[in-house]
This record gives sequence, C-alpha cells and structure tokens, in this order.
Amino acid sequence: MAKELTTRAQDYSQWYNDLVLKGDLADYSAVRGCMVIKPYGYALWENMQAALDKMFKDTGHQNAYFPLFVPKSLFEAEEKNAEGFAKECAIVTHYRLKTDPNNKGKLMVDPDAKLEEELIVRPTSEAIIWNTYKTWIQSYRDLPILVNQWANVVRWEMRTRLFLRTAEFLWQEGHTAHATKEEAIEETVKMLDVYADFAENWMAVPVIKGIKTASERFAGAEDTYCIEALMQDGKALQAGTSHFLGQNFAKAFDVKFSDKNNTLDYVWATSWGVSTRLIGGLVMTHSDDQGLVMPPRIAPIQVVIVPIYKGEEQKAILDEKIETIVASFKAAGIRVKYDNTDHNRPGWKFAEYELKGVPVRIAVGPRDLENNQVEVARRDTKEKSAVSMEGLTETISALLLEIQSNLFNRAKQYRDDHITKADTWTEFVHTLDNKTGFVSAHWDGTAETEEKIKELTKATIRCIPLDNTLEAGVCVYTGNPSSQRVLFARAY
Amino acid sequence: MAKELTTRAQDYSQWYNDLVLKGDLADYSAVRGCMVIKPYGYALWENMQAALDKMFKDTGHQNAYFPLFVPKSLFEAEEKNAEGFAKECAIVTHYRLKTDPNNKGKLMVDPDAKLEEELIVRPTSEAIIWNTYKTWIQSYRDLPILVNQWANVVRWEMRTRLFLRTAEFLWQEGHTAHATKEEAIEETVKMLDVYADFAENWMAVPVIKGIKTASERFAGAEDTYCIEALMQDGKALQAGTSHFLGQNFAKAFDVKFSDKNNTLDYVWATSWGVSTRLIGGLVMTHSDDQGLVMPPRIAPIQVVIVPIYKGEEQKAILDEKIETIVASFKAAGIRVKYDNTDHNRPGWKFAEYELKGVPVRIAVGPRDLENNQVEVARRDTKEKSAVSMEGLTETISALLLEIQSNLFNRAKQYRDDHITKADTWTEFVHTLDNKTGFVSAHWDGTAETEEKIKELTKATIRCIPLDNTLEAGVCVYTGNPSSQRVLFARAY
Repeated sequence: MAKELTTRAQDYSQWYNDLVLKGDLADYSAVRGCMVIKPYGYALWENMQAALDKMFKDTGHQNAYFPLFVPKSLFEAEEKNAEGFAKECAIVTHYRLKTDPNNKGKLMVDPDAKLEEELIVRPTSEAIIWNTYKTWIQSYRDLPILVNQWANVVRWEMRTRLFLRTAEFLWQEGHTAHATKEEAIEETVKMLDVYADFAENWMAVPVIKGIKTASERFAGAEDTYCIEALMQDGKALQAGTSHFLGQNFAKAFDVKFSDKNNTLDYVWATSWGVSTRLIGGLVMTHSDDQGLVMPPRIAPIQVVIVPIYKGEEQKAILDEKIETIVASFKAAGIRVKYDNTDHNRPGWKFAEYELKGVPVRIAVGPRDLENNQVEVARRDTKEKSAVSMEGLTETISALLLEIQSNLFNRAKQYRDDHITKADTWTEFVHTLDNKTGFVSAHWDGTAETEEKIKELTKATIRCIPLDNTLEAGVCVYTGNPSSQRVLFARAY
Repeated sequence: MAKELTTRAQDYSQWYNDLVLKGDLADYSAVRGCMVIKPYGYALWENMQAALDKMFKDTGHQNAYFPLFVPKSLFEAEEKNAEGFAKECAIVTHYRLKTDPNNKGKLMVDPDAKLEEELIVRPTSEAIIWNTYKTWIQSYRDLPILVNQWANVVRWEMRTRLFLRTAEFLWQEGHTAHATKEEAIEETVKMLDVYADFAENWMAVPVIKGIKTASERFAGAEDTYCIEALMQDGKALQAGTSHFLGQNFAKAFDVKFSDKNNTLDYVWATSWGVSTRLIGGLVMTHSDDQGLVMPPRIAPIQVVIVPIYKGEEQKAILDEKIETIVASFKAAGIRVKYDNTDHNRPGWKFAEYELKGVPVRIAVGPRDLENNQVEVARRDTKEKSAVSMEGLTETISALLLEIQSNLFNRAKQYRDDHITKADTWTEFVHTLDNKTGFVSAHWDGTAETEEKIKELTKATIRCIPLDNTLEAGVCVYTGNPSSQRVLFARAY
C-alpha cells in the first residue's frame, strides 16, 4: 500500500519532512544534525553538480581540493570571518583513541594525543585557501586564479532541517583572486548570473538577484550578492551567494602581487557557493500533496514505464515491445526506467513514482499494444492521455521540455503574485501575516531599523534587488526618507 | 628557464616530490600531513573518477553520501575495525570557539561546548553505514544494496608522503549488503576485477590480483583482495583493495533480514576502495627524469600545440591555421591545449609540458605551414617526427592509443622482469637488496614467519596471487613445508 503523506495544509513542515524521507532523498543519521543522502537524492545532486560544474568550466574555472582542517591560527586571521563562524565550529583536539582501562571493549580519547594547535573542521575555506594562494601569487601573471572546490563543510547549527540546514553539508565554493577591484566585482556578478541561470533553467526555480544589507553579509565580505527564491508557504530561501571580498583576505594572509609597473598591491578576492540546501528549495518550490515533483532537466528518472499485464505470456510480449521503446528513449538522451518488477502491483508503482516526482509516467497494457498507443501521465498537471506509439520518443522529449517550462512558469506566477508593495506599517505586518511572500517596502537604510523590524515581525531584508529603480519614499517603520524599496520576507 | 628536477638516480624520493610539486599536481598545506590538490592534479583525479564511476554504475552501483563523523559508540562497535583505526583518528571534542580573554584578537576552544560523545572523523565508513543499513534492511527484497560513496577520509599517519600517504585523502568506498555469502564473495571479486581493469586499461599500470595474508587484512574483514603494482624503484604499491567482510558488521550493528522462508539471518557485506594514492602510483610507474608521463586515456591534456613564430604577423597566420586543428581535435574527443601565450618562449613551453607529462606535443612554425606538416613529439619515447596535416586528427588519435599501449607494455615488461623466484634465504635477501621487485617464494603460512621476515628484510607478503598454481616446496625462511609461493616485496 502507498505511503501516507502529511498534506501541506495539515502541517507544511511535516509535509516537507515526509517528502524528503519517504521520497527517498535523505535519511536521518546517528550524528546530530547530519543526514544521509540516499541514492535517489544523491542522483539528483549529481545531476545538479554536472550542470553547475560545466557552467563553471565554461566560465574559465578549474577544480582543486584544499584540506578539510583549518589550523586555529589561520582560522582567526581574518577577524570578521572568524567571528562569524566561531560559534558553530566542530573542533578536532586529539589524534588518537586508546583502550579504556575501566570499560572493557570500549575506547577513550588518548589524553597524550592532544594536538598542539586545534584544527577547525572547515565551515568555509577562505582561510586555508588564501594561506595557500600566498605561495601561488607573486606577479600579475599569476592572476587571475579561478578555482572551485566541491567539498563537505561543517557548521554546528543548533536547529537543523534535512537539506535546508544540516551540520554537515555538501557544496561547491569558488575562490578567485584578481589584480583589480573591477575584475573581482565583475567575477562576483558573473557567478551570481551563473547561479540564477542554473536555478531558473535547470531547477525551474525563479529567483530574484540582489545584494544583501551590511548585517546580512557573509562574514568577511565587502558585499554579498544573492539569489532569493520563494517557497510555497510564502517563506523566502537564500539559494546561492556570491561575495566580493575586497582585499580583506589578502590583507589577513599578506597576499600581494607586483603589477606591470612592479608596484606591490594586495590581491582582490571573491568567493561563491551553492549547496545541497538547493535540494530543499527544489522540494518546496514544486512538490504537492502527492509527493515530490522533479523538473525534467535534473530529474534522476525522467520517464518511468509501467507494464500492465496478467500472467507471464502478456508480460513477455510487453517486455519485448517496451525494451525497444526504452532503447529509443535512451538513444535520445532520456533518463528512463522500466519497472517490470513482479512484487508490486501497478497501482503501488503509480503511487511510488508519483511520490518520487518522476515527470512522466507511461503505462502500457495489452490493449494499448493493440491500439498502437500508450497512456502518458504528467506529474505536474496529473493529466493523462493516450499517445500514439508513432513518434513516441519525439512526443516525450517535447513533453519533458513542456513540463520543465510549465513548472518554471507556475512557480514564477506564484512568486510574482507574492511580491506585495506595502507603504504603511499596518500593510506591512498584515501582508507578512496573511498573504506572506516578499514585501517590497521602503527602509531608511539603518541597521537599527532592520534589526527592529526583524525583532517585531521575524522578517529580514532578503535583498536589494539588482534591477531596483530608485523611488523616493519613507521607511515603512520609522517614516524616515528612503530612496528605494527593498524586499522583506520571513525566510528559511 | 626550466625548473630543475632531481633525477631518479640522485634521489628517488626527492625525484618523486619534485615531480608532484613542480609538475603542479599538489602542494603542501598548512595542515600537518594534508595536501592541496592543485588544478592540474585534480583534473587528473576527475578523469580517474569519471572512468571509475561509470564502471561502478555499469556494474549496478549507485552513489550516496554518509556523514563525515562517526560517534565513538558506533566507531567501537566492530571491535577489530575499531582497534585497527583507533591509533590514527582525528577526534572532534568541541563544537564552539570563543574569544580568548587573555589574548586580544585570538580565539580559544570554548570549554562549555564539549560534546557529550566524541565524534571520530571517518577513517573509513563501515560503522556509520552499517548503522544506517540497519534501518534500510528488513527483508531479502531490500537486498542487495549496492552503494558507493565518493568522500574524504582522515587517517592520522605519522609519516606522510604527497598522494601516497596523507592524513586526509580522497577516495571512493563501496559498501554492499547481500543475502548470501556466495553473492558477497562474488561482489568482492567483481570489484577487484573492476579495479584491475581500471589500473591496467586506463592508468596503464599493470597489477597483480591477489589475496592478503591474515596479518595484512583490512581490520574487520574476513578476506582482503588487492591489486599490487610495482614502482620503478622496485617497491610494491597496494593500488586498491576489496574486502569480504562476512557478517562481522551485520553482527556488530545487528543487521538481520528475513529470507523467502521468513528465517532471520545476518546480512553479508563487502567494502572496496581506491584513493588519490593511485596518483602517486601513476607518477612512479611512468615518469622519467624529465618529468611526469601521463597515460593518454586519463591525461588532463592529451595534446599541446605550441606555435613557433617571429612577430605578430606570423602569429596571426599560425593562430588561424591552428584553431582549425584544435577544432578538429576537439570534435574527435581529443583533450587539446593551444598554448600561444606570449610571455614564454617555445623552449620554456617544451620543457614545461614535458614536465607535466603531456603525451603528445605538436610544434608548428611558418615553414611547417609551407610544407603542410607539423612536428610531433611523443612524451613516452621522446621521438620527434614530421607529420602531414592531411589526416592529422586520425594520426594523432592513433598515436594516443599507441602511447597508451606502449606505456602499459613498458611497465609490464619492467614488472615481469622484477618477479624473481627465490628458493633459499640467501637468494631471497640478495634479490630484495639488489634486483628489488617482487620475490616469489615459499612461505610456511604462519604469521610468526611472516613477521620475522618483515623484521629482517622490511619485505612484506604483498599477496597470494589469485592465479597461483599449487606447488610443493619449503619455506624460504623456516624450511617448513609449503604448498604455494607468495609474493614478497618492500612496499610503499
């Protein structure tokens, strides 16, 4: 029988957990705040990685790998960065276990194996990387350095959620070094564009490109650019960030280069990252009460084919016919699964692949064969139709594109419908509490007001949109003058 | 000017380090025993990963991801495994830093943030994975589980060498669960075959498939299968291992399944892994006193093209012609780099790409254009020849295959020449000290003799080859009866 799912209306948060767990994306683990990414979830991540990695390489970046550990003395070198991450660090203090003399069969930390200097498990790698860049950079000819790393990082979060906020997560972190400020800013914006392109065109998640306020900046950055998405419960999700780091890390690690005139200057830096958090955003953007909904371009399985038969003879006939369909799909680059396992009934399979969000389901029975057709069901609209076997591969390829675009348009419609202008405090609070979503409002530009609004409403400034137009107004909270609206929302 | 390299004859160990560092594969880091894998080295690793990953998927495996940390209570559950790794574990004991009140701008471990249970940074993942499999497996229908993980692991080694032995390294670890002993053993052997296939056909490194003696087994395994390679200094390198774990982990974590008759039994397990250590083996198998030698199938750059010109006008003509060659190479799937940078002379470039081991170098000057030819230099034999532009892509594709096969044959010739039978203790010691390589000798099968031989000669039993033929003889050390020869060598 089908797995029971909580509906969004019943309990949005439990609905999300149900989908992640029962949809086989991830599992809890024995380690506080850490998750197991199951094969189906990891296949999704692999598809996301492949697309992003190609985009990074197409923009001139190379991958490399830096150590998991950061010695404390390096970790604390860039003060703001250190301060920002100090409270959520896993710290290695010893390098050996020994037999516990008081506890047969048990081990204990060997007090004689204490490290002289503690090692921080990287929460982010600017420190260890800039300490390395110091030895790689002497002259302008060594610049730019355009490096990315796929890695695991650890941030000791107190409240964790599968994918959205876990103590260990997988991500990529780009770390680039440049000769000029302009070039570094250009890189920061270029990678933000890459992220927006990926989110919208691969994940079908519409995003707003913007810039963070000073208090929401990455610790150690001069400016943090971001893409913000909107979930179905009206809460925003930061889906990726790209930081212009100025010369902060170059100064902390004394990384200078000589320019063409042999003048020494500090190197300019950027860093940018997206993580497995994106999977949480994907789930909450597209899924429904029947389960996950995967955008075709990154779906681990794009099409599932389920045979409907009675007895071995019918099965053999279907197997033969369907294997030719499978071969044709694969040749066209469609990720197809033929599920002709015996131990589950078609109805169970339908529910299972619906739960897993497979974009297209094809059912074929003996009568379909007679009529030279199949039954095609779309996961996004749940529409079913009889489709001719003639040109089936082309029909399905086109349908996958249509589903991809439908998912994006649907999410964009919802997002656009949930950007609401508020010009008074009453409107502001009322929108947040009832309509939810982004609230576009004037703000006086001070950290105090931002903090006060957050305290009163739990809404934060998600970003100052890059495409903002200047507009004179008054701050929705203080009434002080403002030159532009910013986007507020409650957020994950 | 070209970078100075130590020769093998001068100092083999320094030669190796020179190649890794100056060939841009890796760099030392600020963390004891940890290395930075530089873009060129990482590109090599990516090619290796892609090939292996496809082989794993073609044999029915899926990737997943499990936590970096293992709680101590899980770590110690399988006693032999725990004992084997206890002495080389990085241990997380705290989760927060705080401002050091006695040291302005510095941080200290917050004593109030001590973990109730210490976390071990995974040296291998059997414990955390089998604790998870427990919740995934109830019935025979849940089996087999065929999962692989690409991850970083940490083993606190006292003496480290770039790639060959580092505190943190990258690897893949397969962890499978089966209903029967036979199926688990079949999987163990199948993955050993995959490793041997990869080593020989991708890395051009000939390997001997064998089985380890009890004292060389993976901690917690019933049997460890391995592939052993031979380096140019006559020392062996374990290049990959595949373990039949019996029911040891299932018992330690209480993982049972009900079979078709509803009888409960413990699950059978395997695990298997190869790591960035392979890169060290690759370097030491093929390289020479001029630098690295990359096998074409996994070389980050297969062909480099260097233009020879005087002045901008000549350069423009060459650029135009060579871009068409580059396009044709790329269309044929050849990884080609056109280095027309101005700031280095051709001679410098020749030395640099020789050092980096690029399999084929093509030089083109104005006179070559007139003669409709190019100069082709092979990295493996250092032969140069004039080659016609006609059908150049096909010529080069064929040459890359020839180089791949030549590297393998050359390494195999060396390896085969360095398997020496020894029937007396004098021969045994003399061979190890002078000819080096593998010594095929009779051994009485006891751990005591194995240990004694190791103590006296530093040679270990690398493996009992899978294709061994039984042969009556007497132990080279004790003179006791023996039924087969085993392979001894000094090893990395």
